[in-house]
Amino acid sequence: MRDAASVLYGRNTVSEALKGDTTVERIFLLDGNHDGVLGNIFKEAKKRGIRVDFVGKDRLDEMTHNGKHQGVCAYISAFEYAEVDDILNRAKEKGEDPFIILLDDIVDPHNLGAIIRSANVCGAHGVIIPKNNAAGLTDTAAKAAEGALSYTPVARVTNLSRTIDELKEQGIWFACADMGGEAAYQQNLTGPIGLVIGNEGKGVSPLVKKKCDFVTSIPVKGEIESLNASVAAGVLMYEVVRQRTAVDKA
Amino acid sequence: MRDAASVLYGRNTVSEALKGDTTVERIFLLDGNHDGVLGNIFKEAKKRGIRVDFVGKDRLDEMTHNGKHQGVCAYISAFEYAEVDDILNRAKEKGEDPFIILLDDIVDPHNLGAIIRSANVCGAHGVIIPKNNAAGLTDTAAKAAEGALSYTPVARVTNLSRTIDELKEQGIWFACADMGGEAAYQQNLTGPIGLVIGNEGKGVSPLVKKKCDFVTSIPVKGEIESLNASVAAGVLMYEVVRQRTAVDKA
Repeated sequence: MRDAASVLYGRNTVSEALKGDTTVERIFLLDGNHDGVLGNIFKEAKKRGIRVDFVGKDRLDEMTHNGKHQGVCAYISAFEYAEVDDILNRAKEKGEDPFIILLDDIVDPHNLGAIIRSANVCGAHGVIIPKNNAAGLTDTAAKAAEGALSYTPVARVTNLSRTIDELKEQGIWFACADMGGEAAYQQNLTGPIGLVIGNEGKGVSPLVKKKCDFVTSIPVKGEIESLNASVAAGVLMYEVVRQRTAVDKA
Repeated sequence: MRDAASVLYGRNTVSEALKGDTTVERIFLLDGNHDGVLGNIFKEAKKRGIRVDFVGKDRLDEMTHNGKHQGVCAYISAFEYAEVDDILNRAKEKGEDPFIILLDDIVDPHNLGAIIRSANVCGAHGVIIPKNNAAGLTDTAAKAAEGALSYTPVARVTNLSRTIDELKEQGIWFACADMGGEAAYQQNLTGPIGLVIGNEGKGVSPLVKKKCDFVTSIPVKGEIESLNASVAAGVLMYEVVRQRTAVDKA
């Protein structure tokens, strides 16, 4: 169940939230025909890539604890987002080569949370996610992150490909996690690196993949062709840690 | 939602299931006072370490699709369990050193499923779980395993410590995933190996840990002290794969 603090409802409240700085993660509209205000909320949400679900009155009553929802309810971010620069500064402060995790449309908040947790444990400097069509920092993600959100910055960007271009100018190399590449163990993953993890079903999108410097793969020895997205992310993050540790010792 | 095939209900049906070969994963009893039959079901379930939840009539009606549940409903295994020997035979058939994953009370079926999936992808020969107080092969676990249950045998044993003793006689070494050990990269994880992963909150139990030959650790570089159980399992499984691959090439 969501905290009351991260649920907004009522036509004006949700309309204002969509115009302002509040980060709306998801919208629920009452099933059926929509008049002007609800119709506008729907259009505005779609324009901004926010997921909209149509639900019954009972569901809305329950989500708002029987509040005056007037047919609309919105989930807002449970945590504040950071900027990409915050992530780079974190690396600089620690005197380390940047190590950034980029998520190309992870949609399951449990996976998002588990990945942020792994990013923290392995000492990555931050996580970058796209603004649209991906899981955001909801309560579910925060819970799965097990406290990591208090330490590891998560930045949200409009266009992941453009962000990769900008970070390349800072000397960061990008590894795209996908099938068909060389095994991660056989590659050099030391130095400033951005690790790009794709959507649970579709993997990394072709546009983002094209921006990456190389493909990094996890060898498949069985019949199933891929790991769960958060497991794959963890395995690759720890290959980076292993290689960095080996270099530090050398 | 569960398949109808994996839900049993009614006093006689559930009582018989508890006596027979059917693997009961979990039991739901109607809130309130229990007469003889429901009381006996409760006692028998507790004796066998099966989780029992007390729920309202609405919940039971929903779970049984308004069937005549008489105040009791049981979830049974969605998949059949294998024997430990099936796992050893699988290694033998492939001409490989046994590589087995042992789970000491993983309770989240999503984690169980993700671990079975990882076990398949990394070429482990099977997974061993305890009979009591742990997640079993429910629909949720099967779904998270993404088809791996059709290939990777999962055996259920009464006493994990005893199973470890028996497998040690076959020349298998046991690595206990826990904090405070040497980093997995610095250890030799080649050869016949059993990797023991602990409960999500409590880790590996002291009794099982004592049976293991050594502790294997994932280095912590951040503020959060541990990875999600299925991520940790994946990272360690892939360290075994990496070392085996390096040995094969040498």
